[in-house]
Amino acid sequence: MNGRFIVFEGPDGSGKSTVLREVKKRLLADGLDIVDIREPGGTVISEKIRDIIIDNDNKKMTSRCEALLFAASRAQLVEEKVRPLLKAGKIILSDRFVLSSLLYQGVGRGLGIEDVKKINDFAIGGLSPDLTIFFNIDYKTALLRKRANFSADRLENEDFDFHKKIFDAYLSLADRYQDNIKKIDATLSVKEVTDQAIRLIYDLVEADK
Amino acid sequence: MNGRFIVFEGPDGSGKSTVLREVKKRLLADGLDIVDIREPGGTVISEKIRDIIIDNDNKKMTSRCEALLFAASRAQLVEEKVRPLLKAGKIILSDRFVLSSLLYQGVGRGLGIEDVKKINDFAIGGLSPDLTIFFNIDYKTALLRKRANFSADRLENEDFDFHKKIFDAYLSLADRYQDNIKKIDATLSVKEVTDQAIRLIYDLVEADK
Repeated sequence: MNGRFIVFEGPDGSGKSTVLREVKKRLLADGLDIVDIREPGGTVISEKIRDIIIDNDNKKMTSRCEALLFAASRAQLVEEKVRPLLKAGKIILSDRFVLSSLLYQGVGRGLGIEDVKKINDFAIGGLSPDLTIFFNIDYKTALLRKRANFSADRLENEDFDFHKKIFDAYLSLADRYQDNIKKIDATLSVKEVTDQAIRLIYDLVEADK
Repeated sequence: MNGRFIVFEGPDGSGKSTVLREVKKRLLADGLDIVDIREPGGTVISEKIRDIIIDNDNKKMTSRCEALLFAASRAQLVEEKVRPLLKAGKIILSDRFVLSSLLYQGVGRGLGIEDVKKINDFAIGGLSPDLTIFFNIDYKTALLRKRANFSADRLENEDFDFHKKIFDAYLSLADRYQDNIKKIDATLSVKEVTDQAIRLIYDLVEADK
């Protein structure tokens, strides 16, 4: 595989999606071969699975069902889209990936990081991001910001305790895997956060030349 | 758990579903506390997942995505329905269960029985059938019978090789686990096949008294 697989991670409301769009715009303008994907979703089948996951009507969904649906959506995305794009040399920007499942389902839902990792290993078979950019911002600030601006889906509507557990686990994983997970300060302006992300991406792309 | 969990397994077109309905009717008339479920499906959320799995439009679905969707549907069914019903002392008749995934996805799709078992262990966490009734009938006879009578879904439309691999694996598993998987002759009339199934169920229910 010749492309680069770059994942944006962080709490809901941390600005990941907004910054991802800005990063894409600027890197495209620089002439880089950029494709963006979102999780869960990104293919026709994965989007149908996404609809089931985020539907506020599905309040009875069990944690194990939820974790398996995320993995199913991801399996389809990886095989149908990510692998072919990497082979074609593209730089992929992904809004969330496996780390989100380890944290939201493994920690948030209490299923355990190891067990959730197993079903995701089955789903993606050996693929791993070249770079994970973690949007570091207090979960409460982020969540309130998001709820003020958008209508929240089933997962975003979980209570603060749920999101606090996940944020603490993000930080501890980011500290443990410093090489693969790079933290950026997500409390700054969109332009400043975008600048930080772009610097990390150029470091990666240049390093391989 | 005080109830009984009984699974009907066999190739497409082996008459499982028809016989299950007959068995249910007669055991209810005998005064037994029977509930039937189908796989994939059986809850509101599981049926939404089923729709994605069987839709002939979803031809691009990867094998791993398919296996994870079956497991997701099953996780929801087990926690929302099977466990509470067993606790309430019901006798559950299930049209297919984990064995079908081991065979259709593990063998038919070539993902490997062990790997497919892992994601199903995650889904059902330690639940296992009290009895599995295997409808023994040559896969080709069964499939032609089915296609003549019903419109086939995405999985049933797979070619003969796919179904032959699965049938051979059914037989070898049924031989290996004789105690848990009981074969019945599914080439006979509906009444005769129903009689065989009912005898096995009474053997199980009486044995525990």
